[in-house]
Amino acid sequence: MNVEYVDAIGYGAAILTTLAFLPQAFKVLRTRQTRDISLLWAIAMTAGVFLWLCYGYASGSMPMIVANAVTLALLLAILGCKLYCK
Amino acid sequence: MNVEYVDAIGYGAAILTTLAFLPQAFKVLRTRQTRDISLLWAIAMTAGVFLWLCYGYASGSMPMIVANAVTLALLLAILGCKLYCK
Repeated sequence: MNVEYVDAIGYGAAILTTLAFLPQAFKVLRTRQTRDISLLWAIAMTAGVFLWLCYGYASGSMPMIVANAVTLALLLAILGCKLYCK
Repeated sequence: MNVEYVDAIGYGAAILTTLAFLPQAFKVLRTRQTRDISLLWAIAMTAGVFLWLCYGYASGSMPMIVANAVTLALLLAILGCKLYCK
């Protein structure tokens, strides 16, 4: 497959899986309800996305750094509410 | 940084952000409750992970194919319950 097509698929994937966390974080911050969200999911995703951020930094990939920094901030909001919102 | 260290960080990240969806999917399938999960999150993640799977296939990366195929199956269970569980 053409390299530009492959890159475009990768950028589309990165944009979707990053922006996806915007409505989820807004929902959690608005409702303060996280009962249906798994704590293990929130912890593992936060740790995993932090490692993706380190991987992006170590590889010198600015798109990975930006995408994972945004996702990490949104995940921290979700995890914080899961732990502290009552 | 040593290339093996960087690779190890990437593998750790991939394992965490894939396995994270196991407890979330099990929680959804057990409780049938998805009120606190954003529909937009579920749709964007499913579409995004499908594109990551295509990207892995086009790049010939077996770890990306395996990780994203597992995540996609778990996300489809979550999205299906979000749409059809009452």
